Amino acid sequence: MTESSKPILYSYFQSSCSWRVRIALALKSIDYETIPINLIKDQGQQFSQEFQALNPMKQVPTLKIDGITISQSLAIIEFLEETRPTPCLLPQDPKKRAQVRMISDTIASGIQPLQNLSVLKQVGQENQLTWAQKVIHTGFNALEQILRSTAGKYCVGDEVSMADLCLVPQVANAERFKVDLTPYPTISRINKTLLALEAFQVSHPCRQPDTPPELRA
Amino acid sequence: MTESSKPILYSYFQSSCSWRVRIALALKSIDYETIPINLIKDQGQQFSQEFQALNPMKQVPTLKIDGITISQSLAIIEFLEETRPTPCLLPQDPKKRAQVRMISDTIASGIQPLQNLSVLKQVGQENQLTWAQKVIHTGFNALEQILRSTAGKYCVGDEVSMADLCLVPQVANAERFKVDLTPYPTISRINKTLLALEAFQVSHPCRQPDTPPELRA
Repeated sequence: MTESSKPILYSYFQSSCSWRVRIALALKSIDYETIPINLIKDQGQQFSQEFQALNPMKQVPTLKIDGITISQSLAIIEFLEETRPTPCLLPQDPKKRAQVRMISDTIASGIQPLQNLSVLKQVGQENQLTWAQKVIHTGFNALEQILRSTAGKYCVGDEVSMADLCLVPQVANAERFKVDLTPYPTISRINKTLLALEAFQVSHPCRQPDTPPELRA
Repeated sequence: MTESSKPILYSYFQSSCSWRVRIALALKSIDYETIPINLIKDQGQQFSQEFQALNPMKQVPTLKIDGITISQSLAIIEFLEETRPTPCLLPQDPKKRAQVRMISDTIASGIQPLQNLSVLKQVGQENQLTWAQKVIHTGFNALEQILRSTAGKYCVGDEVSMADLCLVPQVANAERFKVDLTPYPTISRINKTLLALEAFQVSHPCRQPDTPPELRA
Protein backbone atom coordinates (compact mmCIF):
# COMPACT_ATOMS: atom_id res chain seq x y z
CA MET A 1 0.00 0.00 0.00
CA THR A 2 2.96 2.29 0.63
CA GLU A 3 3.49 3.49 -2.91
CA SER A 4 -0.06 3.39 -4.21
CA SER A 5 -0.03 7.10 -5.00
CA LYS A 6 3.11 7.08 -7.14
CA PRO A 7 2.44 6.71 -10.87
CA ILE A 8 3.86 3.55 -12.46
CA LEU A 9 5.22 3.69 -16.01
CA TYR A 10 5.53 0.44 -17.93
CA SER A 11 8.33 1.29 -20.28
CA TYR A 12 11.10 -0.10 -22.48
CA PHE A 13 14.27 1.93 -22.63
CA GLN A 14 14.47 1.86 -26.43
CA SER A 15 10.76 2.41 -27.15
CA SER A 16 10.31 5.81 -28.77
CA CYS A 17 6.70 6.00 -27.56
CA SER A 18 7.82 5.35 -23.98
CA TRP A 19 10.43 8.08 -24.32
CA ARG A 20 7.73 10.61 -25.31
CA VAL A 21 5.97 9.98 -22.00
CA ARG A 22 9.19 9.95 -19.99
CA ILE A 23 9.96 13.45 -21.32
CA ALA A 24 6.50 14.69 -20.29
CA LEU A 25 6.92 13.22 -16.81
CA ALA A 26 10.35 14.83 -16.49
CA LEU A 27 9.22 18.25 -17.74
CA LYS A 28 6.29 18.24 -15.34
CA SER A 29 8.49 16.99 -12.47
CA ILE A 30 6.21 14.02 -11.82
CA ASP A 31 7.86 11.43 -9.63
CA TYR A 32 7.18 7.90 -10.89
CA GLU A 33 8.28 4.30 -10.73
CA THR A 34 9.43 2.44 -13.85
CA ILE A 35 8.46 -1.16 -14.48
CA PRO A 36 10.55 -2.31 -17.45
CA ILE A 37 8.80 -4.40 -20.10
CA ASN A 38 11.47 -5.96 -22.28
CA LEU A 39 10.04 -6.14 -25.79
CA ILE A 40 12.65 -8.68 -26.90
CA LYS A 41 13.54 -10.86 -23.91
CA ASP A 42 11.36 -13.90 -23.08
CA GLN A 43 9.96 -13.59 -26.63
CA GLY A 44 8.55 -10.23 -25.58
CA GLN A 45 7.38 -9.53 -22.03
CA GLN A 46 4.54 -7.42 -23.48
CA PHE A 47 2.85 -10.67 -24.44
CA SER A 48 2.61 -11.93 -20.84
CA GLN A 49 -0.86 -12.49 -19.39
CA GLU A 50 -0.22 -9.93 -16.65
CA PHE A 51 0.79 -7.19 -19.07
CA GLN A 52 -1.98 -7.93 -21.57
CA ALA A 53 -4.47 -7.39 -18.76
CA LEU A 54 -3.05 -3.86 -18.37
CA ASN A 55 -2.67 -3.11 -22.07
CA PRO A 56 -4.49 -5.42 -24.48
CA MET A 57 -2.53 -3.87 -27.39
CA LYS A 58 0.61 -5.43 -25.84
CA GLN A 59 2.60 -2.26 -26.28
CA VAL A 60 4.48 0.19 -24.12
CA PRO A 61 4.07 2.74 -22.67
CA THR A 62 1.27 2.21 -20.21
CA LEU A 63 0.84 4.52 -17.22
CA LYS A 64 -0.96 3.75 -13.97
CA ILE A 65 -1.92 7.08 -12.44
CA ASP A 66 -4.72 8.53 -10.31
CA GLY A 67 -6.40 5.14 -10.09
CA ILE A 68 -6.61 4.52 -13.84
CA THR A 69 -4.48 2.78 -16.43
CA ILE A 70 -3.82 4.66 -19.67
CA SER A 71 -2.16 3.41 -22.84
CA GLN A 72 -1.20 5.25 -26.03
CA SER A 73 1.51 7.83 -25.48
CA LEU A 74 -0.39 10.89 -26.74
CA ALA A 75 -3.47 10.01 -24.69
CA ILE A 76 -1.19 9.77 -21.65
CA ILE A 77 0.47 13.12 -22.41
CA GLU A 78 -2.90 14.85 -22.94
CA PHE A 79 -4.06 13.45 -19.57
CA LEU A 80 -0.94 14.72 -17.84
CA GLU A 81 -1.48 18.09 -19.51
CA GLU A 82 -5.07 18.30 -18.28
CA THR A 83 -4.34 17.18 -14.75
CA ARG A 84 -0.85 18.69 -14.26
CA PRO A 85 -0.88 21.74 -16.55
CA THR A 86 2.47 23.25 -15.50
CA PRO A 87 4.63 23.65 -17.53
CA CYS A 88 2.18 23.39 -20.38
CA LEU A 89 2.90 21.19 -23.38
CA LEU A 90 0.16 22.70 -25.52
CA PRO A 91 -0.02 26.41 -26.40
CA GLN A 92 -3.08 28.45 -25.41
CA ASP A 93 -4.06 29.45 -28.96
CA PRO A 94 -6.27 26.76 -30.59
CA LYS A 95 -4.54 27.25 -33.96
CA LYS A 96 -1.12 26.65 -32.40
CA ARG A 97 -2.53 23.68 -30.48
CA ALA A 98 -3.74 22.29 -33.82
CA GLN A 99 -0.23 22.64 -35.22
CA VAL A 100 1.26 20.84 -32.22
CA ARG A 101 -1.24 18.01 -32.53
CA MET A 102 -0.80 17.82 -36.31
CA ILE A 103 2.96 17.37 -35.94
CA SER A 104 2.54 14.92 -33.06
CA ASP A 105 0.03 12.82 -35.02
CA THR A 106 2.17 12.93 -38.16
CA ILE A 107 4.83 11.14 -36.13
CA ALA A 108 2.57 9.01 -33.91
CA SER A 109 0.22 7.83 -36.69
CA GLY A 110 2.16 8.52 -39.87
CA ILE A 111 5.72 7.41 -39.14
CA GLN A 112 6.36 5.45 -35.95
CA PRO A 113 3.68 2.74 -36.36
CA LEU A 114 5.10 1.81 -39.77
CA GLN A 115 8.59 1.20 -38.46
CA ASN A 116 7.87 -0.36 -35.10
CA LEU A 117 9.04 -3.77 -34.02
CA SER A 118 5.87 -5.71 -34.85
CA VAL A 119 5.76 -4.43 -38.44
CA LEU A 120 9.46 -4.98 -38.99
CA LYS A 121 8.99 -8.60 -37.90
CA GLN A 122 6.39 -8.96 -40.66
CA VAL A 123 8.47 -7.49 -43.47
CA GLY A 124 11.32 -9.93 -42.80
CA GLN A 125 14.88 -9.45 -41.60
CA GLU A 126 16.44 -8.69 -45.01
CA ASN A 127 13.94 -5.90 -45.83
CA GLN A 128 13.77 -4.20 -42.43
CA LEU A 129 16.34 -1.46 -42.94
CA THR A 130 15.09 -0.46 -46.40
CA TRP A 131 11.48 -0.45 -45.19
CA ALA A 132 12.20 1.64 -42.08
CA GLN A 133 14.36 4.11 -44.01
CA LYS A 134 11.68 4.60 -46.66
CA VAL A 135 8.94 5.20 -44.09
CA ILE A 136 11.05 7.67 -42.15
CA HIS A 137 12.20 9.54 -45.28
CA THR A 138 8.60 9.96 -46.43
CA GLY A 139 7.60 11.25 -43.01
CA PHE A 140 10.62 13.49 -42.52
CA ASN A 141 10.19 15.08 -45.96
CA ALA A 142 6.71 16.11 -44.86
CA LEU A 143 7.78 17.09 -41.38
CA GLU A 144 10.65 19.26 -42.63
CA GLN A 145 8.19 21.15 -44.83
CA ILE A 146 5.66 21.57 -42.01
CA LEU A 147 8.28 22.70 -39.50
CA ARG A 148 9.59 25.34 -41.88
CA SER A 149 6.32 27.20 -41.31
CA THR A 150 5.63 26.37 -37.64
CA ALA A 151 9.02 26.26 -35.93
CA GLY A 152 10.73 28.84 -33.81
CA LYS A 153 13.33 27.54 -31.43
CA TYR A 154 11.25 24.36 -31.16
CA CYS A 155 8.65 22.59 -33.34
CA VAL A 156 5.95 25.22 -32.81
CA GLY A 157 7.28 28.59 -31.77
CA ASP A 158 9.65 29.01 -28.88
CA GLU A 159 8.05 26.83 -26.21
CA VAL A 160 8.57 23.10 -25.80
CA SER A 161 5.37 21.28 -26.75
CA MET A 162 4.01 17.76 -27.22
CA ALA A 163 5.32 17.91 -30.80
CA ASP A 164 8.89 18.13 -29.48
CA LEU A 165 8.26 15.10 -27.26
CA CYS A 166 7.45 13.18 -30.44
CA LEU A 167 10.24 14.61 -32.58
CA VAL A 168 13.32 13.70 -30.54
CA PRO A 169 12.51 9.99 -30.07
CA GLN A 170 11.64 9.74 -33.78
CA VAL A 171 14.98 11.25 -34.76
CA ALA A 172 16.65 8.68 -32.49
CA ASN A 173 14.79 5.96 -34.40
CA ALA A 174 15.98 7.50 -37.66
CA GLU A 175 19.56 7.38 -36.43
CA ARG A 176 19.12 3.78 -35.31
CA PHE A 177 17.99 2.93 -38.85
CA LYS A 178 20.93 4.87 -40.34
CA VAL A 179 18.76 7.46 -42.07
CA ASP A 180 20.79 10.28 -43.60
CA LEU A 181 19.51 13.43 -41.89
CA THR A 182 21.28 15.91 -44.19
CA PRO A 183 18.06 16.72 -46.13
CA TYR A 184 16.36 17.76 -42.87
CA PRO A 185 18.16 20.80 -41.46
CA THR A 186 15.14 22.09 -39.51
CA ILE A 187 14.46 18.71 -37.88
CA SER A 188 18.15 18.33 -37.06
CA ARG A 189 18.47 21.81 -35.60
CA ILE A 190 15.39 21.46 -33.34
CA ASN A 191 16.45 17.98 -32.27
CA LYS A 192 19.87 19.22 -31.22
CA THR A 193 18.42 22.15 -29.28
CA LEU A 194 15.99 19.86 -27.45
CA LEU A 195 18.62 17.27 -26.57
CA ALA A 196 20.42 19.94 -24.57
CA LEU A 197 17.46 20.20 -22.18
CA GLU A 198 17.60 18.23 -18.93
CA ALA A 199 14.18 16.60 -19.34
CA PHE A 200 15.27 15.11 -22.66
CA GLN A 201 18.51 13.88 -21.12
CA VAL A 202 17.20 12.18 -17.97
CA SER A 203 14.51 10.43 -20.05
CA HIS A 204 16.98 9.30 -22.73
CA PRO A 205 17.13 5.59 -23.66
CA CYS A 206 20.77 5.46 -22.54
CA ARG A 207 19.84 6.34 -18.94
CA GLN A 208 16.91 4.14 -18.01
CA PRO A 209 16.71 1.51 -15.26
CA ASP A 210 16.51 -1.17 -17.98
CA THR A 211 19.26 0.21 -20.25
CA PRO A 212 21.81 -2.58 -20.78
CA PRO A 213 25.29 -1.66 -19.45
CA GLU A 214 26.85 -1.58 -22.94
CA LEU A 215 24.36 1.11 -24.08
CA ARG A 216 24.61 3.29 -20.99
CA ALA A 217 25.95 6.80 -21.25
CA MET B 1 -13.68 35.77 -52.27
CA THR B 2 -17.32 34.72 -51.92
CA GLU B 3 -16.81 31.48 -50.04
CA SER B 4 -13.67 32.27 -48.10
CA SER B 5 -15.39 31.67 -44.75
CA LYS B 6 -16.69 28.20 -45.52
CA PRO B 7 -14.37 25.39 -44.40
CA ILE B 8 -12.99 23.19 -47.18
CA LEU B 9 -12.48 19.49 -46.56
CA TYR B 10 -10.09 17.62 -48.83
CA SER B 11 -11.53 14.15 -48.64
CA TYR B 12 -11.80 10.77 -50.34
CA PHE B 13 -15.11 8.99 -50.00
CA GLN B 14 -13.55 5.68 -48.95
CA SER B 15 -10.84 7.08 -46.65
CA SER B 16 -11.65 6.05 -43.08
CA CYS B 17 -9.68 9.02 -41.70
CA SER B 18 -11.72 11.42 -43.85
CA TRP B 19 -14.91 9.79 -42.60
CA ARG B 20 -13.89 10.49 -38.97
CA VAL B 21 -13.74 14.21 -39.74
CA ARG B 22 -16.94 14.16 -41.80
CA ILE B 23 -18.79 12.73 -38.78
CA ALA B 24 -17.42 15.49 -36.54
CA LEU B 25 -18.46 18.17 -39.03
CA ALA B 26 -21.94 16.64 -39.29
CA LEU B 27 -22.40 16.27 -35.52
CA LYS B 28 -21.36 19.87 -34.98
CA SER B 29 -23.53 21.08 -37.88
CA ILE B 30 -20.59 22.76 -39.59
CA ASP B 31 -21.35 23.65 -43.18
CA TYR B 32 -18.40 22.86 -45.46
CA GLU B 33 -17.33 22.29 -49.01
CA THR B 34 -15.77 19.00 -50.14
CA ILE B 35 -12.86 18.88 -52.54
CA PRO B 36 -12.44 15.24 -53.52
CA ILE B 37 -8.90 13.88 -53.70
CA ASN B 38 -9.01 10.57 -55.51
CA LEU B 39 -6.34 8.36 -53.94
CA ILE B 40 -6.35 5.95 -56.89
CA LYS B 41 -7.14 7.94 -60.06
CA ASP B 42 -4.30 9.74 -61.92
CA GLN B 43 -1.90 7.49 -59.94
CA GLY B 44 -3.14 9.23 -56.79
CA GLN B 45 -4.25 12.87 -56.78
CA GLN B 46 -2.72 13.23 -53.31
CA PHE B 47 0.68 13.24 -55.03
CA SER B 48 -0.06 16.38 -57.09
CA GLN B 49 2.10 19.45 -56.46
CA GLU B 50 -0.96 21.48 -55.45
CA PHE B 51 -2.07 18.98 -52.84
CA GLN B 52 1.42 18.35 -51.47
CA ALA B 53 1.68 22.06 -50.78
CA LEU B 54 -1.42 21.73 -48.55
CA ASN B 55 -0.46 18.43 -46.95
CA PRO B 56 3.15 17.30 -47.35
CA MET B 57 2.20 13.86 -46.01
CA LYS B 58 0.08 13.42 -49.17
CA GLN B 59 -2.86 12.06 -47.25
CA VAL B 60 -6.47 12.94 -46.67
CA PRO B 61 -8.19 14.46 -44.79
CA THR B 62 -6.99 18.04 -44.76
CA LEU B 63 -9.22 20.84 -43.55
CA LYS B 64 -8.96 24.52 -44.41
CA ILE B 65 -10.74 26.43 -41.67
CA ASP B 66 -10.45 29.76 -39.86
CA GLY B 67 -7.52 30.75 -42.06
CA ILE B 68 -5.38 27.70 -41.31
CA THR B 69 -4.83 24.31 -42.93
CA ILE B 70 -4.87 21.29 -40.63
CA SER B 71 -4.00 17.70 -41.44
CA GLN B 72 -4.27 14.55 -39.33
CA SER B 73 -7.85 13.61 -38.51
CA LEU B 74 -7.56 13.66 -34.71
CA ALA B 75 -5.78 17.03 -34.72
CA ILE B 76 -8.64 18.35 -36.86
CA ILE B 77 -11.30 16.91 -34.54
CA GLU B 78 -9.57 18.33 -31.44
CA PHE B 79 -9.46 21.76 -33.14
CA LEU B 80 -13.16 21.56 -33.99
CA GLU B 81 -13.86 20.54 -30.39
CA GLU B 82 -11.94 23.50 -29.00
CA THR B 83 -13.42 26.07 -31.36
CA ARG B 84 -16.96 24.63 -31.78
CA PRO B 85 -17.56 22.81 -28.50
CA THR B 86 -21.23 21.92 -29.00
CA PRO B 87 -22.11 19.08 -29.02
CA CYS B 88 -18.96 17.96 -27.26
CA LEU B 89 -16.97 15.01 -28.51
CA LEU B 90 -14.86 14.71 -25.37
CA PRO B 91 -16.33 14.17 -21.89
CA GLN B 92 -15.69 16.70 -19.11
CA ASP B 93 -13.95 14.27 -16.75
CA PRO B 94 -10.19 14.01 -17.55
CA LYS B 95 -10.22 10.25 -16.84
CA LYS B 96 -13.02 9.70 -19.34
CA ARG B 97 -11.27 11.99 -21.81
CA ALA B 98 -8.18 9.82 -21.42
CA GLN B 99 -10.27 6.74 -22.24
CA VAL B 100 -11.70 8.43 -25.34
CA ARG B 101 -8.23 9.42 -26.53
CA MET B 102 -6.78 6.00 -25.72
CA ILE B 103 -9.42 4.28 -27.86
CA SER B 104 -9.06 6.88 -30.63
CA ASP B 105 -5.27 6.50 -30.70
CA THR B 106 -5.49 2.71 -30.58
CA ILE B 107 -7.33 2.94 -33.89
CA ALA B 108 -5.53 5.97 -35.36
CA SER B 109 -1.99 4.86 -34.47
CA GLY B 110 -2.35 1.15 -33.76
CA ILE B 111 -4.63 -0.17 -36.48
CA GLN B 112 -5.44 2.12 -39.41
CA PRO B 113 -1.88 3.13 -40.40
CA LEU B 114 -0.90 -0.52 -40.74
CA GLN B 115 -3.66 -1.32 -43.19
CA ASN B 116 -3.79 1.85 -45.24
CA LEU B 117 -3.28 2.04 -48.95
CA SER B 118 0.41 3.00 -48.95
CA VAL B 119 1.39 0.07 -46.70
CA LEU B 120 -0.73 -2.41 -48.63
CA LYS B 121 1.07 -1.36 -51.80
CA GLN B 122 4.34 -2.27 -50.11
CA VAL B 123 3.31 -5.72 -48.92
CA GLY B 124 2.28 -6.78 -52.42
CA GLN B 125 -1.09 -7.65 -53.97
CA GLU B 126 -1.10 -11.33 -52.97
CA ASN B 127 -0.46 -10.62 -49.27
CA GLN B 128 -2.74 -7.60 -48.81
CA LEU B 129 -5.83 -9.32 -47.48
CA THR B 130 -3.97 -11.54 -45.02
CA TRP B 131 -1.89 -8.58 -43.78
CA ALA B 132 -4.90 -6.29 -43.30
CA GLN B 133 -6.93 -9.00 -41.58
CA LYS B 134 -4.11 -9.79 -39.17
CA VAL B 135 -3.60 -6.15 -38.25
CA ILE B 136 -7.31 -5.58 -37.70
CA HIS B 137 -7.75 -8.77 -35.66
CA THR B 138 -4.88 -7.80 -33.37
CA GLY B 139 -6.35 -4.34 -32.90
CA PHE B 140 -9.94 -5.48 -32.48
CA ASN B 141 -8.98 -8.11 -29.90
CA ALA B 142 -7.50 -5.28 -27.83
CA LEU B 143 -10.35 -2.90 -28.55
CA GLU B 144 -13.01 -5.43 -27.59
CA GLN B 145 -11.29 -5.92 -24.24
CA ILE B 146 -10.94 -2.16 -23.65
CA LEU B 147 -14.53 -1.42 -24.62
CA ARG B 148 -15.85 -4.06 -22.24
CA SER B 149 -14.74 -1.78 -19.40
CA THR B 150 -15.43 1.67 -20.93
CA ALA B 151 -18.57 1.28 -23.05
CA GLY B 152 -22.11 2.21 -22.28
CA LYS B 153 -24.33 2.78 -25.25
CA TYR B 154 -21.24 4.05 -27.11
CA CYS B 155 -17.46 3.56 -26.78
CA VAL B 156 -17.16 5.53 -23.54
CA GLY B 157 -20.39 5.78 -21.60
CA ASP B 158 -23.60 6.95 -23.19
CA GLU B 159 -22.46 10.00 -25.14
CA VAL B 160 -21.01 9.98 -28.65
CA SER B 161 -17.30 10.83 -28.48
CA MET B 162 -14.23 11.08 -30.71
CA ALA B 163 -13.68 7.35 -30.04
CA ASP B 164 -16.93 6.57 -31.84
CA LEU B 165 -15.83 8.69 -34.80
CA CYS B 166 -12.82 6.39 -35.08
CA LEU B 167 -14.65 3.13 -34.44
CA VAL B 168 -17.27 3.17 -37.19
CA PRO B 169 -14.90 3.90 -40.11
CA GLN B 170 -12.50 1.23 -38.79
CA VAL B 171 -15.30 -1.35 -38.69
CA ALA B 172 -16.11 -0.42 -42.29
CA ASN B 173 -12.47 -1.09 -43.18
CA ALA B 174 -12.71 -4.44 -41.39
CA GLU B 175 -15.76 -5.34 -43.46
CA ARG B 176 -14.02 -4.26 -46.63
CA PHE B 177 -11.18 -6.65 -45.78
CA LYS B 178 -13.69 -9.43 -44.97
CA VAL B 179 -12.75 -9.64 -41.28
CA ASP B 180 -15.05 -11.96 -39.33
CA LEU B 181 -16.58 -9.73 -36.64
CA THR B 182 -18.16 -12.55 -34.62
CA PRO B 183 -15.44 -12.43 -31.94
CA TYR B 184 -16.20 -8.75 -31.30
CA PRO B 185 -19.77 -8.44 -29.97
CA THR B 186 -19.15 -5.13 -28.16
CA ILE B 187 -17.55 -3.49 -31.21
CA SER B 188 -20.36 -4.79 -33.42
CA ARG B 189 -23.11 -3.62 -31.07
CA ILE B 190 -21.71 -0.10 -30.70
CA ASN B 191 -21.08 0.15 -34.44
CA LYS B 192 -24.66 -0.79 -35.22
CA THR B 193 -26.05 1.72 -32.71
CA LEU B 194 -23.87 4.51 -34.14
CA LEU B 195 -24.76 3.75 -37.75
CA ALA B 196 -28.37 4.55 -36.92
CA LEU B 197 -27.44 8.17 -36.13
CA GLU B 198 -27.92 10.76 -38.85
CA ALA B 199 -24.39 12.22 -38.59
CA PHE B 200 -22.91 8.81 -39.30
CA GLN B 201 -25.24 8.32 -42.24
CA VAL B 202 -24.78 11.62 -44.08
CA SER B 203 -21.00 11.26 -43.72
CA HIS B 204 -20.99 7.64 -44.94
CA PRO B 205 -18.67 6.70 -47.85
CA CYS B 206 -21.72 5.67 -49.89
CA ARG B 207 -23.11 9.22 -49.86
CA GLN B 208 -20.23 11.52 -50.71
CA PRO B 209 -19.88 13.87 -53.69
CA ASP B 210 -17.12 11.62 -55.02
CA THR B 211 -18.82 8.27 -54.38
CA PRO B 212 -18.93 6.37 -57.68
CA PRO B 213 -22.52 5.66 -58.86
CA GLU B 214 -22.14 1.89 -58.39
CA LEU B 215 -21.29 2.32 -54.68
CA ARG B 216 -24.00 4.85 -53.90
CA ALA B 217 -26.76 4.00 -51.47
